[in-house]
Amino acid sequence: MLIHKNQAPTTITTKLLIKKRKRMTEGFSMKFMIEKKDLLAITSMVYRAASSKNAIPVLSGLLLESDPDTGLTMTATDMEIGIRASTAKIEVIEKGSVLVNAHYFFDFIKLLPEVPIFIELNQETAQLDIKYGRSSGFINTYRDYEYPALPLKKIKPCFTIKQEVLKEALKKTVFAAATTHFRQVFTGVLFDLGEGGNLNVVASDTHRLARYSCTIKLDAPEPLSFIIPTRTANEILRLLDDSPEEINIGLSNNNVSFYRNNFLLLSRLIEGQYPNYEQVIPRSFSYKVKLDTQVLADTLERARVIPSDDKLKIQYTRFKFEENEVEVNSYSEIMGEITEVIEIKDPVEGEGELNISFNTNYFLDVVKILEGEAKELLINLSSILGPVMIVNPQKDNYLYVLVPLRTSN
Amino acid sequence: MLIHKNQAPTTITTKLLIKKRKRMTEGFSMKFMIEKKDLLAITSMVYRAASSKNAIPVLSGLLLESDPDTGLTMTATDMEIGIRASTAKIEVIEKGSVLVNAHYFFDFIKLLPEVPIFIELNQETAQLDIKYGRSSGFINTYRDYEYPALPLKKIKPCFTIKQEVLKEALKKTVFAAATTHFRQVFTGVLFDLGEGGNLNVVASDTHRLARYSCTIKLDAPEPLSFIIPTRTANEILRLLDDSPEEINIGLSNNNVSFYRNNFLLLSRLIEGQYPNYEQVIPRSFSYKVKLDTQVLADTLERARVIPSDDKLKIQYTRFKFEENEVEVNSYSEIMGEITEVIEIKDPVEGEGELNISFNTNYFLDVVKILEGEAKELLINLSSILGPVMIVNPQKDNYLYVLVPLRTSN
Repeated sequence: MLIHKNQAPTTITTKLLIKKRKRMTEGFSMKFMIEKKDLLAITSMVYRAASSKNAIPVLSGLLLESDPDTGLTMTATDMEIGIRASTAKIEVIEKGSVLVNAHYFFDFIKLLPEVPIFIELNQETAQLDIKYGRSSGFINTYRDYEYPALPLKKIKPCFTIKQEVLKEALKKTVFAAATTHFRQVFTGVLFDLGEGGNLNVVASDTHRLARYSCTIKLDAPEPLSFIIPTRTANEILRLLDDSPEEINIGLSNNNVSFYRNNFLLLSRLIEGQYPNYEQVIPRSFSYKVKLDTQVLADTLERARVIPSDDKLKIQYTRFKFEENEVEVNSYSEIMGEITEVIEIKDPVEGEGELNISFNTNYFLDVVKILEGEAKELLINLSSILGPVMIVNPQKDNYLYVLVPLRTSN
Repeated sequence: MLIHKNQAPTTITTKLLIKKRKRMTEGFSMKFMIEKKDLLAITSMVYRAASSKNAIPVLSGLLLESDPDTGLTMTATDMEIGIRASTAKIEVIEKGSVLVNAHYFFDFIKLLPEVPIFIELNQETAQLDIKYGRSSGFINTYRDYEYPALPLKKIKPCFTIKQEVLKEALKKTVFAAATTHFRQVFTGVLFDLGEGGNLNVVASDTHRLARYSCTIKLDAPEPLSFIIPTRTANEILRLLDDSPEEINIGLSNNNVSFYRNNFLLLSRLIEGQYPNYEQVIPRSFSYKVKLDTQVLADTLERARVIPSDDKLKIQYTRFKFEENEVEVNSYSEIMGEITEVIEIKDPVEGEGELNISFNTNYFLDVVKILEGEAKELLINLSSILGPVMIVNPQKDNYLYVLVPLRTSN
């Protein structure tokens, strides 16, 4: 374990603080025309925030609001995450709003032909009529619903970040978070903003830790830190685009929001204190070696094929670091063995031979992450059980700390 | 049901008739060199015939035989299906044979680098050593095994068929067979060879039937018919290549074999009498209509999105055929409804209006099969409950019979 402070586990699950609001359809009859591709674009962004469980029906809903001034706005939330997006590429015929099942609506519209789509609320039948060409259909709507309003007014803008930087930060860290952990903070990604706009994005499951660093422009230059759930991180990764537009990050009570023009994602934060991650990043090493990234990736892929004999045990690979080469070995009593030799081109810093074992998938994860950018990886070792630090030797904005495994042989 | 003769269900499961043979490794020490790509090609063809269950260990085995005269031969069988392939692209250093776990061997070799691979049986350790560059590994072997010999000598050649024709015949029929059925014959594909070399390939689950016809050169011009399991059909589809080389089909006892140069697949046949399928193909129709294939495919894809309210019930689509158009409707109480209009360009043969319902997926299956080749589909109808026949109006070698559903509305 990387982090082993005696700290009480945080088990409080927070929800988005949301007030209920009255239904808005009364007296209104929503009606608009939109091109299929624009309808699909906005729906795809929003619908995944809706709950796919049916415990509380409105939470599986998608709220459509049409307004001649603001265009079409869609909102979905399952109270953990909320997404709102809007588009002006619409011809509003009548102002109004309606709540439909988000997944049904998405399923219905995703295969529609590339033609103008007419959408209209039929007040009498409480159905949302959808017309395209000579064909048509309808989706049932929720009657007399009370849909939660996202608490957008309390959002305090904190900082802005380039979309491509945020994308890289999340891609390189989120995989290292725990899927489940009794200390909830390890199931999230930490944003740790220090003085001078130095932002560290960190994830760890206590066996490994990934840290991405960057510098951002600060609106309010005060240190702050917050932890977002991995689900939120993955949704953001899905929603960021390749435009040069920056994305804003704001905080409110226990929520964080990521927003840009016409788009907002609101998420609950994970409560609790993230342990001091800097403490677990080793600072000195007795052994430093550079390995070809592609060769290492191929070797680990092959080593991973050898099964773990005990299904409960972790699949691991043994490394023997020598002066001019590394011997990589994976063994299974039932299947067989693989032993590869990777040549070391640059001289090793450090002396003698070092035997060390790693969880094969944990090692491969970081090699895959850096495969595209680094021809070589710098592996910093200290001892058979000391944490290892893996970096791209050409860049100092990312590091990965991996705890070796204790193995019998 | 299309076929409802009172016939006793066939429940006998036959196995490949195979004699055990003595192990052959005694005194031999197999050793050869092969390029990675050639090793992967032959292993990929053969290993899937091995059992992935471990009930009888040797049946999960892959038999490798190296011989200076015949090159490398690989064999795998789970007693239902058997595949043997050989390659001369090998340098045999020592003749011999070995049995290894087929899936382990495939997993081990599939990711090896593109270099020459040295494979050698180590008699002392009973391990198959695999060397590539400076790296190496081994796979455990089966000791003292008795591997079944495929009964190849009894095969009586029947006919040859072009690979592309066999591929088309199987692709267009196998999907219509039943996954499970108390009458085993419906879980297979019938090859029915009549006089003059007229071959019908047929599959049916009793609710639908697909028939592909072609003419082949006959070695022995006598009528015969046999039923192959769908698994065999799918394996053949996987193994056929795009070369102009023909494939031979031979029969022996209760087995069928498909073979060409350096390759053979042997399979058990499904025993039992296939019902008279010609009887269930309707011969006269009161209503004939041509629909645009792509338009119909898109409409059915959208109709399929509407869920079946009762999970046990079949998802169906209602068609209303009129003089100039077809109205296609799919309805769900929980979700909503979709109603599309498909225009009919050519005049309809027949009079009045016809309402009829189909299993949406069963209809879509044939539309997808013909999508690539037919701009229009000819749909031949007779009455609300009479079987429908769907064909490509430009070709007469393929037909699909579909039984409508009785629906309440």
